[in-house]
Amino acid sequence: MNIPATDLPRIVVIGGGFAGISAIRQLTRVPAQIVLFDRHNYHTFQPLLYQVSTAGLEPDSIAYPLRKVFRKHKDFHFRMAQVERIDPEKKTILTNIGTLSYDYLIIATGTKTNYFGNAQIERNSMPMKTVAQALDIRSLMLQNIEKADREENASRRKQLLTFVIAGAGPTGVELAGALAEFRKGILGKDYQYLDRSDMRVVLIEGSGRVLVAMSEFASKKSQQFLERMGVEVLLNTLVTDYDQEVVKTQTGQEIPAATFIWSAGVTGNSVAGLHESAYVPRANRYPVNAFNEIEGMEQVYALGDVALMKTERYPNGHPQVAQPAIQQGKNLGKNLVRHLAGKPMRAFRYFDKGTMATIGRNKAVCDIGRYRFSGFFAWMVWMFVHLWFLVGFRNRVITFFNWTYNYINYDRAARLIIRPFKRKAIS
Amino acid sequence: MNIPATDLPRIVVIGGGFAGISAIRQLTRVPAQIVLFDRHNYHTFQPLLYQVSTAGLEPDSIAYPLRKVFRKHKDFHFRMAQVERIDPEKKTILTNIGTLSYDYLIIATGTKTNYFGNAQIERNSMPMKTVAQALDIRSLMLQNIEKADREENASRRKQLLTFVIAGAGPTGVELAGALAEFRKGILGKDYQYLDRSDMRVVLIEGSGRVLVAMSEFASKKSQQFLERMGVEVLLNTLVTDYDQEVVKTQTGQEIPAATFIWSAGVTGNSVAGLHESAYVPRANRYPVNAFNEIEGMEQVYALGDVALMKTERYPNGHPQVAQPAIQQGKNLGKNLVRHLAGKPMRAFRYFDKGTMATIGRNKAVCDIGRYRFSGFFAWMVWMFVHLWFLVGFRNRVITFFNWTYNYINYDRAARLIIRPFKRKAIS
Repeated sequence: MNIPATDLPRIVVIGGGFAGISAIRQLTRVPAQIVLFDRHNYHTFQPLLYQVSTAGLEPDSIAYPLRKVFRKHKDFHFRMAQVERIDPEKKTILTNIGTLSYDYLIIATGTKTNYFGNAQIERNSMPMKTVAQALDIRSLMLQNIEKADREENASRRKQLLTFVIAGAGPTGVELAGALAEFRKGILGKDYQYLDRSDMRVVLIEGSGRVLVAMSEFASKKSQQFLERMGVEVLLNTLVTDYDQEVVKTQTGQEIPAATFIWSAGVTGNSVAGLHESAYVPRANRYPVNAFNEIEGMEQVYALGDVALMKTERYPNGHPQVAQPAIQQGKNLGKNLVRHLAGKPMRAFRYFDKGTMATIGRNKAVCDIGRYRFSGFFAWMVWMFVHLWFLVGFRNRVITFFNWTYNYINYDRAARLIIRPFKRKAIS
Repeated sequence: MNIPATDLPRIVVIGGGFAGISAIRQLTRVPAQIVLFDRHNYHTFQPLLYQVSTAGLEPDSIAYPLRKVFRKHKDFHFRMAQVERIDPEKKTILTNIGTLSYDYLIIATGTKTNYFGNAQIERNSMPMKTVAQALDIRSLMLQNIEKADREENASRRKQLLTFVIAGAGPTGVELAGALAEFRKGILGKDYQYLDRSDMRVVLIEGSGRVLVAMSEFASKKSQQFLERMGVEVLLNTLVTDYDQEVVKTQTGQEIPAATFIWSAGVTGNSVAGLHESAYVPRANRYPVNAFNEIEGMEQVYALGDVALMKTERYPNGHPQVAQPAIQQGKNLGKNLVRHLAGKPMRAFRYFDKGTMATIGRNKAVCDIGRYRFSGFFAWMVWMFVHLWFLVGFRNRVITFFNWTYNYINYDRAARLIIRPFKRKAIS
């Protein structure tokens, strides 16, 4: 794969998400060769993916070329590839473009969608973990609205206009809110002959409240916001089946829906090759010590969503969101700099900056320290924080302009079906 | 297809390009029902498609939702569909979503890529007529550069970095220039280990000069610009074969190239069903009278690229560019308003506003009236005119910001491989 041989230690990083890039950012002047692998040639700002799905932003607002992030690093090498296996005995990784040895290995592969073994749902639902998947949701949503507009049968039309989302975590809540705003801002204007009340947005959650990882206050407020926007929220409900026509639940409900989005679970995107005890089976996360080193291994680290660091406050590992990934990446990067300079490493300490979610225009919820607040001010904080964390000045300006424009005009400018989504044939 | 029955005359328009939307724009308050068909749910600003290909702009800058253009029209209906056949006897059109009768029919279907019967080139080359095709070119270009970076074999690396474009019309010239700028602005920075001089951009033209539709001055200047930017220009050369590995020409040249873009010809995108004499076979354009009515037909019109109106100045029809399409569309729209009000129609008169092309940063050529000029001022005029003609305030702002940003930073921010391009298997 044409990585120059080197006498320096080689640090291999798998995954250019929040954790991976935070780690590498610390390694600027370290006497080491750094190799980053990712399936994509860009970093994805996952918290705003739902805005790509709902036609509010284009991919270039939330994706950033990985090569550009590190273009000033010396002896840095990016390879767009799929890592297939780790061989910890030989200290090599096997990829679809060849094999490479490592001295230090950092696994920062994040999570993938978890269907909990339901093959029917895996086949027929829309996941939303990548930019391409977000664009597929956008296309399918617009295609179904186009179909509804030309459909003469009323019940079929309602089915085409029904959007069901499983999982009321931040992704599910933000998607449901954005779809409700699409109905309000776009449907009545672009589709004069469709009855806006025919469009349903249904959010289904297995637990007893939405945004279960946040405070009770945030759950209550966000459910109020959603319901005020016309989203149907079903709690304590599990989806059991979807056949491209009807969503079925364990409570016996049957909801005819042409679009079904699955955001009800994730599982660690673990890499084959580490011995089985190296990860916690159900969550697929690697147990790590306070330096993010995988237990029982040397100089092999796991970061962020795919790492499981047990602490007093988080006995089941840190929440699988951006902040622990960013902070662990930064800590590990600094530790490697220290280590290569002969200094001892420092244990990771998580600083909880708070949690927030946006539901729609002027509507967000924030849990920050002991403060819980919601509404317009929370929404301003949410926007500021998300703009701040976007990589690159350009992406911030484009996103800010789009948000301002959409806010003033109740618009979603990117409602373009560039590549129509084709359903898999039902087997 | 759920179009309401009406007592008013029904005007059916096929194609939401420059011609189609210019015609419909005139029909705001006409006592008629208007139905627009297009394969896409957006209007494409074709002159800037090459900037999507070369990662300068995202689709939402140059595409505009068709429903939004006409959302204030009464009794206007858009249908995203493929028109398959016209039945002029029954006055109906057949589409993939059903059949519809018309009183007035406007064919504004533009052109499609013409491979002149070379199936091998059709199979293996990249066309650039749609947004999806432009994104495919972007992906393939970036994929090939990624491959080159990991390629150890020097000659294979050069092949991966060779970009050949057939056809030096505006599209070919602008693409070649943008690729040369990509080499200058991006390659050396993002790919420190690639030798910039390994990247070749070759522009192949069958006639004796580039931009053959423009003045000799413009041809000479733009060729100078291209060559100064390091583009290899081959004139009087026809591409005869491409097998995904080597471009072959009738002059005996063989150029190993992993990317081959075909912009060497277009042909009218005619619709089946009109009797054979209704179009000029080779060009596939419908001969029309001075009111854009297809010869031998009544109340069936053709506009723009797919129309062939013989005039003293243009014995073979108007040039297949935006201006004749816009002006014919506007004239026909006004004529239908007059006609439905019982007034006579007015013959079309083409006002030549000039022609221009951009080659790169500070480099463009303009032929406007008797004036021929090039360089920085021409480039400013080109930018102003293209921003002016973009549909929608938002698209203008986004495009202007991207241009400014790219200009200052020598950047192309959208260098994202969202959907990797997969080659067709060689049969």
